[in-house]
Amino acid sequence: MSNPFFKNYGPINILKIIDLLNINGNFQKKNINDIKDLSSSTENDLTFFHSGKYKKLANNTKASFCITSNNLKNELPDSCIPLVVDNVLISTALVTKKFYPDAVHDQFDNTVEDIVRTKFENKVIFGKNVLIGTNVSFGSDCYIGHNTIIEKNVSIGNGCFIGSNSIIRNTLIGNKVKILDNCVIGKHGFGFFPDSKMNTRYPHIGIVQIHDNCEIGCGATIDRGSMSNTVIGKNTYLDNQIHIAHNVKIGENTIIAGQVGIAGSTILGNNIKIGGQVGISGHLKIGDNVEIAGGSGVIKDIPANSKVMGYPAKNIRQFLKENK
Amino acid sequence: MSNPFFKNYGPINILKIIDLLNINGNFQKKNINDIKDLSSSTENDLTFFHSGKYKKLANNTKASFCITSNNLKNELPDSCIPLVVDNVLISTALVTKKFYPDAVHDQFDNTVEDIVRTKFENKVIFGKNVLIGTNVSFGSDCYIGHNTIIEKNVSIGNGCFIGSNSIIRNTLIGNKVKILDNCVIGKHGFGFFPDSKMNTRYPHIGIVQIHDNCEIGCGATIDRGSMSNTVIGKNTYLDNQIHIAHNVKIGENTIIAGQVGIAGSTILGNNIKIGGQVGISGHLKIGDNVEIAGGSGVIKDIPANSKVMGYPAKNIRQFLKENK
Amino acid sequence: MSNPFFKNYGPINILKIIDLLNINGNFQKKNINDIKDLSSSTENDLTFFHSGKYKKLANNTKASFCITSNNLKNELPDSCIPLVVDNVLISTALVTKKFYPDAVHDQFDNTVEDIVRTKFENKVIFGKNVLIGTNVSFGSDCYIGHNTIIEKNVSIGNGCFIGSNSIIRNTLIGNKVKILDNCVIGKHGFGFFPDSKMNTRYPHIGIVQIHDNCEIGCGATIDRGSMSNTVIGKNTYLDNQIHIAHNVKIGENTIIAGQVGIAGSTILGNNIKIGGQVGISGHLKIGDNVEIAGGSGVIKDIPANSKVMGYPAKNIRQFLKENK
Repeated sequence: MSNPFFKNYGPINILKIIDLLNINGNFQKKNINDIKDLSSSTENDLTFFHSGKYKKLANNTKASFCITSNNLKNELPDSCIPLVVDNVLISTALVTKKFYPDAVHDQFDNTVEDIVRTKFENKVIFGKNVLIGTNVSFGSDCYIGHNTIIEKNVSIGNGCFIGSNSIIRNTLIGNKVKILDNCVIGKHGFGFFPDSKMNTRYPHIGIVQIHDNCEIGCGATIDRGSMSNTVIGKNTYLDNQIHIAHNVKIGENTIIAGQVGIAGSTILGNNIKIGGQVGISGHLKIGDNVEIAGGSGVIKDIPANSKVMGYPAKNIRQFLKENK
Repeated sequence: MSNPFFKNYGPINILKIIDLLNINGNFQKKNINDIKDLSSSTENDLTFFHSGKYKKLANNTKASFCITSNNLKNELPDSCIPLVVDNVLISTALVTKKFYPDAVHDQFDNTVEDIVRTKFENKVIFGKNVLIGTNVSFGSDCYIGHNTIIEKNVSIGNGCFIGSNSIIRNTLIGNKVKILDNCVIGKHGFGFFPDSKMNTRYPHIGIVQIHDNCEIGCGATIDRGSMSNTVIGKNTYLDNQIHIAHNVKIGENTIIAGQVGIAGSTILGNNIKIGGQVGISGHLKIGDNVEIAGGSGVIKDIPANSKVMGYPAKNIRQFLKENK
Repeated sequence: MSNPFFKNYGPINILKIIDLLNINGNFQKKNINDIKDLSSSTENDLTFFHSGKYKKLANNTKASFCITSNNLKNELPDSCIPLVVDNVLISTALVTKKFYPDAVHDQFDNTVEDIVRTKFENKVIFGKNVLIGTNVSFGSDCYIGHNTIIEKNVSIGNGCFIGSNSIIRNTLIGNKVKILDNCVIGKHGFGFFPDSKMNTRYPHIGIVQIHDNCEIGCGATIDRGSMSNTVIGKNTYLDNQIHIAHNVKIGENTIIAGQVGIAGSTILGNNIKIGGQVGISGHLKIGDNVEIAGGSGVIKDIPANSKVMGYPAKNIRQFLKENK
């Protein structure tokens, strides 16, 4: 849980949090600094625990309080007081909003200025109508194309090329990265709680990290993470019109052809090749050196070194034998 | 047939219309106010009738004239004079163009002004380089991002967020709607008559309606309707890079994941869930509460309450059993 | 190999080329004007020969030098001295970069000026913030929308409509062509040599040609060719969100629905119909009058006059029979 860019409005007294969650019981006043995951919380933090598969982490959390369910509360150590709620994720979102209210909505950044009025005027080579927000930094030898908007909270390394008509916020960019035209990078993901009257967005306190030597094609949308980051590993190349959802992590030396979509929280290894128009469902693991043929739809984990094809994707030889 | 935004150049004398359609016969001078569908026409309107499935409506039309084929002309009441042509749709398009010449082409709107020179300067919170066309209105508490162009004929309700680099025209937007970055909304659809020398575009006199509480993701294209409207129902959420073709109607509380495409004139009910990269053919009906798994291709109607998957989409259990 | 737009930095002495390729042997000084393919080279050019299927062309090349492999070198005539390398394509890219260094990177065009400061001020009808680069020409009766960037090396015919927020470079556009909003046309393709430390881009010295009466939908990306051109034939219509990769050639009177992707170097005939979300692999041939149903994935050549569907695409009747 990394949040270099969102202002933490804490500490917040636990009594206010109790109140927000409509929890009964006697609690002592105590200031809570932050909301973090089970393993990174300290005794001044609040955490959350919503699924049995995190039991081990829950047993050892250092947090003083934990939003959890009646079923899971007994897994917490004595040092951690359970806050029992009906829906752990909705309650976690509610509390996260209190700490990070700026991470919920993504209206345009009204801190931007024309680059000619900023300190970057002589540092960066830039086109017409370039806008720069607060908390932006550039390394040496960077180019930014026309009409591009570098909104707040963007760090760009050395030797980067940013195209025209692109919009970037809440993103850490390494060295020698190219981002082509018409991209939107770092906006919140498609994450919300459906409700038949009015859906509720949950906060996205993660960021986008794009490591050295990457190229991001035209028309990409790369959403920032909700409780973790969206990551594009070193020397990975994305073709045009690709959609990378929130919390996705892509490894190094990976090549992704046009119009691919990767759903939220999926994790890809290194040296992967993905053909055009492939779709990958959320919350999957794709191992190192995997090759996915163009047009495939991946709906389960793919072990390392496999070649797959089809919808649902399976062993490529088997698929081609069955589909002559 | 709702056309609040396109100027009707009528009335047009029926003799001019006869002439345009190369029809022989004796006709009396009569001014025609508008071209409308079978059921909404009055005695001063012209209508059209191109398929037997509209027989019942044809039997009862109040229009004085009807563009139709030799096969269908006898279905019309005595009060309605048939204008018999070879291709009803091409002839209808020709006549519609006479009434609504502005609905054929979609060149950029040259009525726009920088928002700082408009009456909205103090009403709306806006970014840099925002352009506003004629016949635009805003409710209270609206935001418009940088470089966004609200072209002519757009009505926006209260509490709406419009992102950056988006283009909107001919669109009615409700309250608390969010439209993210790089969208193009309200342009004509992909509707034309193919011809080996030069295709002919037909007019699009419909609009786009986006109801309260909707969210439209980055990079969406939502085309306006040709003879009816394109509609996004209340509290429906669209992820990034989605394409909604002309005349599509989507119900309420529907959730559509990234890179989905819905072809022209398809009608979707309420409470539908559509996974990423789904494609839905044109002129289909998708019932309430349907769930369509990511990557599916839908080529026929889907009854309410079904869960489907595959290409072509079928019952999800059957699909998964057959595709292990 | 047509390169009206990229500056040729030749002639280059063959000794410098030898040195660049790390080739041993005795060579005589000689100025080389250009690098061309086997058939269009003259005695002052260098060529390349990387696959046995071009034997016949190699037997008859007029080039004085040819980058090739040990296996193929004996196919060259006595007048052509082989330059034997390990990887013909990488070496060809290296040399092409020397002749055409401007064809490798695609940073934004910093030659652009606001159109009001150019000679087109009274010739073209234009929106706000339109930028025009060097070596651009327009016919009569052209429109360009707001925020559009016509970068260097673009020729536009008569009666063309260019939308808003589009970016075009290195492109020849015929008469009566419409390019809608948010397109990116003429940028380099997704062509590079993968390397686990840092991928190397190869030059794209081709252009995009869009012939008379075409329409290109919103959000299209059409990449220019690497060693040949990307071509859209006369009266061909593309719907929204389509991706056309480098070197693709599309014939006349073809209709392509939304979200289609065509991978590099595939060649399509005339009068083809392609449904929405179709994907076509690279280096294929699709014959005249072919119809490809929406959602299909094409992975092999399709003979003329066929109707195909499925993934992989096969005869449409067979597909529908097998997939009830």
